[in-house]
Formats: sequence, C-alpha cells, structure tokens
Amino acid sequence: MGVNNIRLNCTIFVRMKTPKLRFVTPDDMEAVLGLIQELADFEKEPEAVIVTVKDLQRDAFGDQPKFSCIVAEKEGVIVGMALFYPRYSTWKGPTLHLEDLIVTQPERGTGVGKALYTAFIAEGKKQGVERIEWVVLDWNKHAVEFYKKSGANVLTDWQTVQMDQTAMGRYLATENENI
Amino acid sequence: MGVNNIRLNCTIFVRMKTPKLRFVTPDDMEAVLGLIQELADFEKEPEAVIVTVKDLQRDAFGDQPKFSCIVAEKEGVIVGMALFYPRYSTWKGPTLHLEDLIVTQPERGTGVGKALYTAFIAEGKKQGVERIEWVVLDWNKHAVEFYKKSGANVLTDWQTVQMDQTAMGRYLATENENI
Repeated sequence: MGVNNIRLNCTIFVRMKTPKLRFVTPDDMEAVLGLIQELADFEKEPEAVIVTVKDLQRDAFGDQPKFSCIVAEKEGVIVGMALFYPRYSTWKGPTLHLEDLIVTQPERGTGVGKALYTAFIAEGKKQGVERIEWVVLDWNKHAVEFYKKSGANVLTDWQTVQMDQTAMGRYLATENENI
Repeated sequence: MGVNNIRLNCTIFVRMKTPKLRFVTPDDMEAVLGLIQELADFEKEPEAVIVTVKDLQRDAFGDQPKFSCIVAEKEGVIVGMALFYPRYSTWKGPTLHLEDLIVTQPERGTGVGKALYTAFIAEGKKQGVERIEWVVLDWNKHAVEFYKKSGANVLTDWQTVQMDQTAMGRYLATENENI
C-alpha cells in the first residue's frame, strides 16, 4: 500500500514536469491533426476540419513551407503544439503569427501551454521580427488576462473578416473581373 | 470658353474611368510606400512606418516573397494598391490575407477600391484557397456594411493580440526559454 502510494506520487511528478519541446517532424502530423480535431470537437465544429495528415506534411515540409510547428512531448507522447507562420506588416515589415496553441485536455494547467507560448515568443525574437501576433476569443477572459499580463496588447477595435470559397464565387459572378 | 468646358468634361471622364490594375514591380515601391505613409498620416501615426522602399523591394521580390501586391494605375500614376500574402488555417489549409487596401484620398469614391477588392478576390479564387480574410476597424461602419453586402462574414468575437519587440524581450527575460 505504502509502496503503491510512492509510485503514484512518482507518476504525478513525471506528468507535471516540463515537457520536451521540439520542432515537428512529418511523422508527428497524425498527432498534430489529432490536436486540431480535438479542439474542433471541443468547439462543437467537428466537421470544420478538412485538412488531412498528408496536407499538413506537404504544407510544412515543401519547398516553401507554409507554417512551422513546435510540439510538446511527454514520455514520447505529443500533448500540445504551437503552429505559426510569417505575416507582413506594411508599417513594421515581417511579423510572426501564432495560428494555434493547443494543449490536449488532460494536460491543461500543467505548464505545457505556457512552455509553448514562451517557445513561440523565443522564436519570434530569434527571427528578429518587430512584432508577433495572434487572435483570442473575447469571452475567454482567462486567456485575455494571461496575454495582457505577459506584455501583449489586446486590440478591441479590429474585427476579423472572412470570405469562403462559395461567397468568393458568388461575388465574382456578379462583378467584372478587372485583372 | 465652350472649348474649355469640353476639355474639362473630358478630363473628368478620364479620371472616373476604370483604373488599370497590374502586379507591382520594384520601381513601383516608392509609390506603394507613399500610399502606406499617406494612410499612417491619416490615422495620426506618421512615425509608425519603419519599412523603407528597399525593404519592400527585397521582401516582395526575394527568393521567398513575403507578400504580393496589385496596384491601380490611372494615367501612369499609382492611385491605390491591395497588398496580400498567404496564411494557413489548421482547419481549411492555405488562405489568403489582405493586409492593406489603400486608395489615395483624391481617388476615393471613384471605384478604385472596389476594383482592387474584386482583383484580390479573383486572386484568391485563382489560387484555389478555401478562404480569404482581412481585418476592419469596428467603427468603420461603411466598410463593415460593404464587406457584409459583398458576402463576407464579419466575426465580432475575435480580438487581435500583438506583442512588440520590447515586450518580447521583457517577457523572455523573466521566463526560462524552454527551447
């Protein structure tokens, strides 16, 4: 009984320790897609994910990679990831955009998210960009406060606008294409 | 007098006609930076622009271009531009982001902005991306309405978060870099 207790404590210690962070490899993409799908399920949009493992492998490792990704590993299992890519500010020049920071549900609150966030900021510093950026849901007060405390600036007056392929086709069908 | 009037009418006709749209060349970058600076002046942030003509030339025409740009030309003068680059959605794959759509003040309301907007959407369709996106200031009701009418979706619950180089340095100085 006592021995079992000691073992249990050891297991908890291992789970809480700092994850190993490293850049993604093609073989990791199944786990990465698993994290993406887990978040989509959580946000009640399970059908929204149309990318495949092959898409992610091609897009991260082609001639002109479309994104970079740092994964967090614990005991050989990927438990989180930060996915980012370059953007461009016409005022500041190159910037880095954090598209997703996902930690698998059972590992939230164990420091994995913070470690990935720090790694992303370190990557921004290493690349020498003037600015890093991302978006947050305004009702996610915990995240908004965390970002503010870390020194980030939350802009409340900009709204994201998106147009999907169907709307693009509809718009163009009613307009003269001038180019 | 009558002849002068006729000449005046002709000039107005020329100014109102559809602009010529084309992709930017290195020689255009001085005019492009002029438009960027004009917008920054208008937004009362004249010092915010730190990019130079050489930066724009290098970043648009290097081995891995950081952005594309379509310019609108009238009588050989650049009067507007749409500047955009690829982004990546972990749900949808490659997308296209419109960073800036600028029309020089005297040419606003003459159809230049609409022509550039249409050209950007046509470029998104040509590249086969699942989605195009940009941001708008929430108090710019005219623009918000225009985008909605064109079939775009304005998301009101996402906020932009930015961290500049100084804040990045400060944050990292207090954190262990885990990568």
